[in-house]
Amino acid sequence: MVALDQVRFLGFDVFGTVVDWRTGVARAAEPFLRRNGVDVDPLHFADRWRELYQPAMEKVRSGERPWVRLRVLNRENLDSALDAIGRPASSFRGEELNELNLAWERLEPWPDSVEGLTRLKRRFAIGALSNGDLTTMTNLARIGHLPWDVIVGAEVTRSYKPQPQTYLGSAGAVGVAPDQAGMVAAHNSDLHAARSCGLHTLFVRRSTEHGPGQTTDLDPDSNWKIAANSLTEIADALGC
Amino acid sequence: MVALDQVRFLGFDVFGTVVDWRTGVARAAEPFLRRNGVDVDPLHFADRWRELYQPAMEKVRSGERPWVRLRVLNRENLDSALDAIGRPASSFRGEELNELNLAWERLEPWPDSVEGLTRLKRRFAIGALSNGDLTTMTNLARIGHLPWDVIVGAEVTRSYKPQPQTYLGSAGAVGVAPDQAGMVAAHNSDLHAARSCGLHTLFVRRSTEHGPGQTTDLDPDSNWKIAANSLTEIADALGC
Repeated sequence: MVALDQVRFLGFDVFGTVVDWRTGVARAAEPFLRRNGVDVDPLHFADRWRELYQPAMEKVRSGERPWVRLRVLNRENLDSALDAIGRPASSFRGEELNELNLAWERLEPWPDSVEGLTRLKRRFAIGALSNGDLTTMTNLARIGHLPWDVIVGAEVTRSYKPQPQTYLGSAGAVGVAPDQAGMVAAHNSDLHAARSCGLHTLFVRRSTEHGPGQTTDLDPDSNWKIAANSLTEIADALGC
Repeated sequence: MVALDQVRFLGFDVFGTVVDWRTGVARAAEPFLRRNGVDVDPLHFADRWRELYQPAMEKVRSGERPWVRLRVLNRENLDSALDAIGRPASSFRGEELNELNLAWERLEPWPDSVEGLTRLKRRFAIGALSNGDLTTMTNLARIGHLPWDVIVGAEVTRSYKPQPQTYLGSAGAVGVAPDQAGMVAAHNSDLHAARSCGLHTLFVRRSTEHGPGQTTDLDPDSNWKIAANSLTEIADALGC
């Protein structure tokens, strides 16, 4: 069993770590694409949309544009994704695109997420520590019955991971020092950034986040405190 | 039954409305006062401490001092409350005072709060919409098992009620228009401010918040959408 005696708060990445964005976005895109005669695999469309996620946040991180919530970036990225497949966003009704954009707020948890979080919550304060905004996180929590004690992360800290302020500001918001906090994520890069800020690091393997052909984050690339296959395995490892 | 068809989010005042601050603070103060030979009724001490709450926030609201979290104000107010009873704060160990200040993060809910919130949560997104900071709200939620979907209010909006930004920013943070939000509070002044911002208003009578001699907020002073004696009665009135 792993000891994390000084840890009082666990922050969780959400997209990919707690919820399955790819099949959820594809499921929402499928009727939209069909209705509009767009001959693109919904999973492929989800991937193209998601690819624009990091570059869009990077403009905020770099200061090229002022703080803006992720749901706004997702909506802009939808326009770009449609433009890229040769079906200009301007040819759709805005309302239809706004509705499709809500796909990111209606994603389902991985099968182990609710049980894992519920068990970890007995011992730790638990919170979403995501780049998603408060609206998105609130809606995901309601739909997926995610038992957060608190939602911190990008909107509360006005910064996008992996900027240090997202981790440090989130720990500060819940009143703990960095070394009293743990970061749980399916992405090695997230954990490297969290470790640089002094947080403890817990890896959960989500080897189908990007589909059956996934090539990234299949394994921990460093000696994280825990590396597990599910949130329930993390709870096991911590004796929760 | 009252219809609030368009409402999707209910924001709750917390101190006095959901949790009982007076007996909780007095309970924490009692051993402190006894140990230090301070001959003051703990309930009286709680009242004196609490009296400094609004003036302290007012300095932030007015811009006289920059944004600061409520737990910092509470800690400063503790010094002032001790000074006022002739036992200068400087005569105590800082650590002891910091510990006593945590009383505000360890308050128990009123007996109906958890059941009322749990029932209301079935239909509405529910959130703390308090002047308390995220740390305090998180700790109160854990101790009291308050099933918030989200914590908004002062820290998220960097403003103290009754400033409009606290209500409007909180509604915006959870992605609803003001008229899709309801404010639940035991204080008429809170509801007047919320109504000015376009929120729906729900009053809960907490006639012993300030003790048996309470003279304020014993009754609704306007035609609030609902006026009830408990959060479970509010759930009843809404058919939850």
